[in-house]
Amino acid sequence: MQTLTLGDLSKYLSEQGLANEIRGDSDRIITGCNTLDDACDGDITFLNNPKYREKIATTQASAIIMQDDDSLQPVIPQIICPDPYQALTVSIQKIYGERRHPKWGLHEKAWIAPSATIGENSNIAPLAYIGENAKVGKNANIYPGTFVGPGAIIGDDVTLYANVTVYDECKLGDRVTLHSGTVIGQDGLGYAPAGETWMKIPQVGNVEVGDDVEMGANCAIDRATMGTTLIGRGSKLSDLIAIGHGCKIGDSCMIVAQAGLAGTVTVGKNVIIAGQAGIVGHISIGDRAKVYAQSGVGSSVKDGESVLGTPATEVRNARRQMIAMQKLPAMRTRLREMESELAKLREIVSQLTGAKDGAAGESDS
Amino acid sequence: MQTLTLGDLSKYLSEQGLANEIRGDSDRIITGCNTLDDACDGDITFLNNPKYREKIATTQASAIIMQDDDSLQPVIPQIICPDPYQALTVSIQKIYGERRHPKWGLHEKAWIAPSATIGENSNIAPLAYIGENAKVGKNANIYPGTFVGPGAIIGDDVTLYANVTVYDECKLGDRVTLHSGTVIGQDGLGYAPAGETWMKIPQVGNVEVGDDVEMGANCAIDRATMGTTLIGRGSKLSDLIAIGHGCKIGDSCMIVAQAGLAGTVTVGKNVIIAGQAGIVGHISIGDRAKVYAQSGVGSSVKDGESVLGTPATEVRNARRQMIAMQKLPAMRTRLREMESELAKLREIVSQLTGAKDGAAGESDS
Amino acid sequence: MQTLTLGDLSKYLSEQGLANEIRGDSDRIITGCNTLDDACDGDITFLNNPKYREKIATTQASAIIMQDDDSLQPVIPQIICPDPYQALTVSIQKIYGERRHPKWGLHEKAWIAPSATIGENSNIAPLAYIGENAKVGKNANIYPGTFVGPGAIIGDDVTLYANVTVYDECKLGDRVTLHSGTVIGQDGLGYAPAGETWMKIPQVGNVEVGDDVEMGANCAIDRATMGTTLIGRGSKLSDLIAIGHGCKIGDSCMIVAQAGLAGTVTVGKNVIIAGQAGIVGHISIGDRAKVYAQSGVGSSVKDGESVLGTPATEVRNARRQMIAMQKLPAMRTRLREMESELAKLREIVSQLTGAKDGAAGESDS
Repeated sequence: MQTLTLGDLSKYLSEQGLANEIRGDSDRIITGCNTLDDACDGDITFLNNPKYREKIATTQASAIIMQDDDSLQPVIPQIICPDPYQALTVSIQKIYGERRHPKWGLHEKAWIAPSATIGENSNIAPLAYIGENAKVGKNANIYPGTFVGPGAIIGDDVTLYANVTVYDECKLGDRVTLHSGTVIGQDGLGYAPAGETWMKIPQVGNVEVGDDVEMGANCAIDRATMGTTLIGRGSKLSDLIAIGHGCKIGDSCMIVAQAGLAGTVTVGKNVIIAGQAGIVGHISIGDRAKVYAQSGVGSSVKDGESVLGTPATEVRNARRQMIAMQKLPAMRTRLREMESELAKLREIVSQLTGAKDGAAGESDS
Repeated sequence: MQTLTLGDLSKYLSEQGLANEIRGDSDRIITGCNTLDDACDGDITFLNNPKYREKIATTQASAIIMQDDDSLQPVIPQIICPDPYQALTVSIQKIYGERRHPKWGLHEKAWIAPSATIGENSNIAPLAYIGENAKVGKNANIYPGTFVGPGAIIGDDVTLYANVTVYDECKLGDRVTLHSGTVIGQDGLGYAPAGETWMKIPQVGNVEVGDDVEMGANCAIDRATMGTTLIGRGSKLSDLIAIGHGCKIGDSCMIVAQAGLAGTVTVGKNVIIAGQAGIVGHISIGDRAKVYAQSGVGSSVKDGESVLGTPATEVRNARRQMIAMQKLPAMRTRLREMESELAKLREIVSQLTGAKDGAAGESDS
Repeated sequence: MQTLTLGDLSKYLSEQGLANEIRGDSDRIITGCNTLDDACDGDITFLNNPKYREKIATTQASAIIMQDDDSLQPVIPQIICPDPYQALTVSIQKIYGERRHPKWGLHEKAWIAPSATIGENSNIAPLAYIGENAKVGKNANIYPGTFVGPGAIIGDDVTLYANVTVYDECKLGDRVTLHSGTVIGQDGLGYAPAGETWMKIPQVGNVEVGDDVEMGANCAIDRATMGTTLIGRGSKLSDLIAIGHGCKIGDSCMIVAQAGLAGTVTVGKNVIIAGQAGIVGHISIGDRAKVYAQSGVGSSVKDGESVLGTPATEVRNARRQMIAMQKLPAMRTRLREMESELAKLREIVSQLTGAKDGAAGESDS
């Protein structure tokens, strides 16, 4: 961290193209960023979601990033700007800088195969393993307990945190970040029925992860049976995500924790798949589609479409179903009442026509 | 294990405040505890759930802990007590004692940074990694393949099983137990949209895990974007659980396998979140609330409330909906029949009034 | 890989009992297998799912395995056979052979307890850990970062990929394969309520994994509280699966990614549990049953039964419910219309009978 005033920060934001205005003491020293709740002296905080506006009165922060809003009168200095969240992001980058990794060099307690090649300035921790014929690019950070399998190819500026596993022959692009416990390239569930048992189909494909992909902790990306399981450039995955063998995920997708894709799903660009959603095999999800949380997607989704529910349908339909569902017990009661009313009415009408068990009653038989 | 008779065990239970009475041979030697199905000679078993009462006739156990029940006539000696499950728990503790860990000392094949501090009597396995400036308390057991990041702080009497990852600057309280594969402090899914791509928001917060917390295998607890992700004292998590950045979990909660919380969820005390439940971001779950299995919680839950379903609603409502749902195909059939009956009735009434296509038919148009 | 012609492959398939016929150039050299999309020169591809038949026109493969179909006229040579998927499986095995593992021997940088026993021809990687009194059979491949706990027993021909954890006293049969990050034998969620807190029930059982079981990445199999959690011979699990303490899984089951079983579930033989399904504790799932994806199973399932939905019911019922659910908003609208029609009709009938507020209206009160 560096000594930085609120004025310095405002100027830096302007330089980054984020118009803003200071209200209050521009000499206030800023040493960190924090939430309204957790901020203390030296921190700059932010208000983005109006539901937290009451917290402005009690925050211990030294300054706040917020939109112009006459109804709020913070006692602390403010940076006023149209998009506080974006300004916060840039502020965090300015204040904290790039993440620092331990300096291991090619540590003597790492196990690096003689046939592996490691790019300049790479940082291989004790207890990391780099397999035969693996290639690791420049400026890598490979943490302890991480396994890079034989023949794997890792681009430049890659960070693999502790206890990551990259199986043999898999490829990671440049600037890929994988968090701990994530596994790339294990065999998928490839079996053919063989009477009462299962015959394994050798899984001879691999996984390729595009440039700028980040994955959270404990994800599991199956290698393809044949060919390649693909995670497109710039896609971001959270934790505990399962991607089946042969999936092709497009660029700049976002996949939220605990979502799962079965085998051979094709996902377009800029798709959002929310938490705990599941997608069956052999379908496609169009560009810019959105799959809502916990949905179960059983058929292909068109470009730009948003789906919700199990089985997933277009989101407005699904919401109508969910609302109707909440009314279902009342509907059931009303249906019974109407049935009774209808029977009584039929009885009266029968009497009027003098024709008991007549036409109106037929459907009882 | 030690030589222990049924009489010794009964006496020990009494000393622990669990009133009980022996029926049958109090000299029977007890060497283990097991289920009705798996018990063999020397084992004491138990009956807690009446659904298993038939198994009493065939169990190979040497004794049984059960409630007083005249309808059951076990041929093996019994410890009769009001709460067999509690008595079993105490019996297991008595018979098996504390879990024993291998004795590694500060093993020469561990990698411990010179700047790290390790409390007395701690046990650091070969192939464990303790980072720069990390602090580990007394009596720790750190298993092989486990990573304690730079600046992490670990309390006393902590056990980290094999292949656990604790990221830099995270804190664990006293008597914390983390099972294998669990990851504490990876970056959460923090990105701001930037045109067609995503801009990473540096995740500069940490995770704090309270005293007496236990987590199962392969959990993933995101560090906060800013500030702290908190797991309250005495909370117990099962396996494969995802906790998003900035969540604040209260004390003595229980979270069951594969549940997931998005970012910035506030959970009160003594909350139970059942398996595969999902909770959206930025809401709160009140003290003593209960979230049923597979529920999808989209809005805040009050103190003491129990919710079920997707979207989750109060449990009795949800159950009524689920029951009605099962009747839905029949309701649909009945609705069609009533429609037909109504049409026929309308026709008859029209004939009676001599006014075809009259008032009753208007809503068809 | 070896030099192999299409004719050689056809002959090999025949020898394996798979009748087939070549059309086109039987001297074509085959060096790999790949999908219609990803195949290039030297690859043999296959058509199994008719939805991909258009891709035949554009594939770059050198040959194709397919059924006899006059409507398709591939320009590349064909192996015609009744079951292309089975022929593909055998072809992959022929072309790629057994998976090759690095040759480590008993690597000097592995940590092997002096009291452990290792069978002949086993291959223990650097950075693997074999605990006190553990027994590993013949021909094992134990990858880096893998932990075999004290007293664990591992059969012959077992492969444990990188960063697997097998807790103390657990047993794996012959030919077991565990993929990276999978954890066998952690404590389950065993606590008894103790006022406002939880009292831990020591988990003194273990896990036994039968012969020929394969598990994907990052699974979590709880040890039994007492006795044994059992995974039956020949069962196949995908990724991120949670199995609770004391479950007994039968032989030759298939469990798909992210499915979860609570404690003490008994599962029969040849059961299929699809992705993200959840099963509550203390129930049984019969032989050859099928649990569909995302289902929530709350009560026992009979032999041969297929269930779907939450709560799960017999699959045809569940599908009827799902279809009815999609009609629910329309049903709700129709119910309201009928209500209105009924009211009008009642009014007319009242006028006809001269008895306002008569019998048919009673249920309004």
